[in-house]
Amino acid sequence: MTGKYDTEDEIAALATPRAAGAIAVIRTSGKRCLEKASRCFSRPKALKAAPGGTFLYGKILDPATKEAVDEVIVSVSRAPRSYTGGDCLEISCHGGIPGVEAVLAALRAAGFRDAQPGEFTLRAFINGKLDLTQAEAVASLIDAKTKTMHGASLRTLDGAVFRELSEIRRILIDASAAVEVQLDYAEDDLDDAVAVPVAELEEAALRLRRLADSYKVGRLMREGVKVALSGRTNSGKSSLFNRLLNEERSIVSDIHGTTRDYLEESVTVAGFPVVLYDTAGLRSSGDRVEAEGIERARRILDACDFVLYVVSAADGETDEDRRCLEQIRRPVLKVINKIDLKAPPAGYDGVPVSAATGEGLSGLIDALAARLKTAAGTAELPFAVNERQAQLVRRALTAVEAALADGGGVVLDGIAMELKEALDAVGEMTGETASADILDAVFSRFCVGK
Amino acid sequence: MTGKYDTEDEIAALATPRAAGAIAVIRTSGKRCLEKASRCFSRPKALKAAPGGTFLYGKILDPATKEAVDEVIVSVSRAPRSYTGGDCLEISCHGGIPGVEAVLAALRAAGFRDAQPGEFTLRAFINGKLDLTQAEAVASLIDAKTKTMHGASLRTLDGAVFRELSEIRRILIDASAAVEVQLDYAEDDLDDAVAVPVAELEEAALRLRRLADSYKVGRLMREGVKVALSGRTNSGKSSLFNRLLNEERSIVSDIHGTTRDYLEESVTVAGFPVVLYDTAGLRSSGDRVEAEGIERARRILDACDFVLYVVSAADGETDEDRRCLEQIRRPVLKVINKIDLKAPPAGYDGVPVSAATGEGLSGLIDALAARLKTAAGTAELPFAVNERQAQLVRRALTAVEAALADGGGVVLDGIAMELKEALDAVGEMTGETASADILDAVFSRFCVGK
Repeated sequence: MTGKYDTEDEIAALATPRAAGAIAVIRTSGKRCLEKASRCFSRPKALKAAPGGTFLYGKILDPATKEAVDEVIVSVSRAPRSYTGGDCLEISCHGGIPGVEAVLAALRAAGFRDAQPGEFTLRAFINGKLDLTQAEAVASLIDAKTKTMHGASLRTLDGAVFRELSEIRRILIDASAAVEVQLDYAEDDLDDAVAVPVAELEEAALRLRRLADSYKVGRLMREGVKVALSGRTNSGKSSLFNRLLNEERSIVSDIHGTTRDYLEESVTVAGFPVVLYDTAGLRSSGDRVEAEGIERARRILDACDFVLYVVSAADGETDEDRRCLEQIRRPVLKVINKIDLKAPPAGYDGVPVSAATGEGLSGLIDALAARLKTAAGTAELPFAVNERQAQLVRRALTAVEAALADGGGVVLDGIAMELKEALDAVGEMTGETASADILDAVFSRFCVGK
Repeated sequence: MTGKYDTEDEIAALATPRAAGAIAVIRTSGKRCLEKASRCFSRPKALKAAPGGTFLYGKILDPATKEAVDEVIVSVSRAPRSYTGGDCLEISCHGGIPGVEAVLAALRAAGFRDAQPGEFTLRAFINGKLDLTQAEAVASLIDAKTKTMHGASLRTLDGAVFRELSEIRRILIDASAAVEVQLDYAEDDLDDAVAVPVAELEEAALRLRRLADSYKVGRLMREGVKVALSGRTNSGKSSLFNRLLNEERSIVSDIHGTTRDYLEESVTVAGFPVVLYDTAGLRSSGDRVEAEGIERARRILDACDFVLYVVSAADGETDEDRRCLEQIRRPVLKVINKIDLKAPPAGYDGVPVSAATGEGLSGLIDALAARLKTAAGTAELPFAVNERQAQLVRRALTAVEAALADGGGVVLDGIAMELKEALDAVGEMTGETASADILDAVFSRFCVGK
């Protein structure tokens, strides 16, 4: 199916991160996997006889010198009950790099070759253990930066997107059948009223739109939402920035804008990775000295997804604040800070907080979360369609919408063509009709060992 | 035994490096390990009934919401056939950080606590699966930077040091018995000739010295050998430096001396980690301009373990070379480079190479390896004693040597005391007589999950 790959070849790769740790796992797969591995294992007979679903203790030996190179646990999976669908072994070693290297060298000497990126999952796909959306979910599980994204990937791996696509496919096939049957008769009796399967097409379009939306949310989840803190000097922007960082523990890597004149940190709010920018205060015209700093702050304010504008309760919203707010072209959430010093004016439309005491912080986070959900359209993410899939969803949707637009006419041939196009796109999503080139592109993005 | 730790408690920890990878493994152990884990597993009955040595597929569920948090393989080990000697589970998850976090959170909710560094191996030690030298070998396996060091740690884990210490212990006990028996009778008959067990004491001293030597080699293996390249400008030092880096693939992380005016790279030669320095050429007096650069090169030349001095075959060894060589206070291996341009003078005592063509490189590496072996005393490393053990070896050796020195006299009491001291030190090495403080100190150096 892929030309480039052979699913019977014996392959091996380190599956855990390449760093010192308590345990390292080396994964192997292939038709003569057990036989070849037993050439470099201290208990060859026990290994060859081991039932699937069991593991055994032993030593990996250099096949040439018979010297022990590591003490390991080998887990045996036999076809078809394995990750790839073929025979597989997982070798759990002590986690030092020279040990891992020595085990891999012993496996090579025993006839294994190094696995390509994603090759284990490719085999699982070829052997029908996974469809292409599930295979891609395996990679996105590893790359997931937040719990929400992880959950969506997990549900996709569990078949959520595949089942949805199967349902869409079924609807499109029904619609197609309804059209084809008329085409067969149409040649005899061209004047009959044409029955376009509008309900089916609308249902398919609705479901495709929902898939397309999940990409939009997923993209925000993957790439993060850029939130800039703005406000006058001394409104307490930096204290609030620090409070937000402490309140919500960052699980994505911290990025410090050390070389730039603004601060940039990552936090997670309502499952969304948020990149928070602390910018220089905007000042009204006249002050030319700080022009460059303000210009940079302005660029961040223009590029961000939305702005948290901080007003000090001590001063209330000043004319200067109003002038600044007028200049901001992105959606704004107003925050009134320092409520420990002075109560905010009655009816003021900012979220009241005290960066100093932490009062109101949870309210601010809730307001922030609500804004993020609005921005994303939804916070529900039953599945996460990736960019490749989103393009195909749009292709299928365009075809279905074209078929619906044709509905008024008598161009059944056109509708049949459009339905075929939509079905092709769906087939490419699940991998049913994916070419070797597409598979290569998909799996080359995987890490080695997966 | 340790007070601070409880071996029955249910503990869990990530055992693979904390980074995104194809697979992450979470290790658990404890008396009610299976029962507690089944609270957050999709197949609780199957898990509770699983025999040791088997693994099963399933999902980790949030115990509160029953929502799946990851798809996993759980390997079941039952007491006493496990790493710790108690019941253990290893949970193999998809390798994303949020997934790992979610599984750990589910385990916490199910009643597990986070494991301390080295706590699994501590349990193995307490349960008598390993002695203390084997436990320490587990940590040094992970930290091993070279294949040789890994091999020595593996043999130590296999009991090489423990068996050697047991043998020394047996000899010391025999010697002790011979002394004690005379002490019992000595009170009655003080004038009898005293028989000191000299042969036993000498055998014990010999074996202890060999252990002490293994520390010396091991330390070089761990810390690396510093080799500085020196020579006149244009002798081809930098080309040779690059050649050596390409010839021997570095398996320790590359360190670039980006902020210093010399280059520093790590390579492995004959199993030794070598830190190679490319220094500025030494110039003879008079040239004040480069004083600072030369001063730094000089400091490296003084601090290194030995020097590779590069002479150009085009010029032969010049007066300037001889002046430079005179100034070097460390052992020197001379290299005559550029033999592709001109044959080296007959009988010249430098290793002939061509950094340009690679000719002679393997000869240079052999010569380098021979020097390293000479420096280390031996390249054989049947085991590797660590610093803690080396101190105890020295304590035991001092006591045995004192006993031998007493041999001429009649101070049997003194010999008995010294033998007791030596036996104590040996017992502390194996952990037989180690206090809770010592165990804490040993295991706190472990990584979490081991």
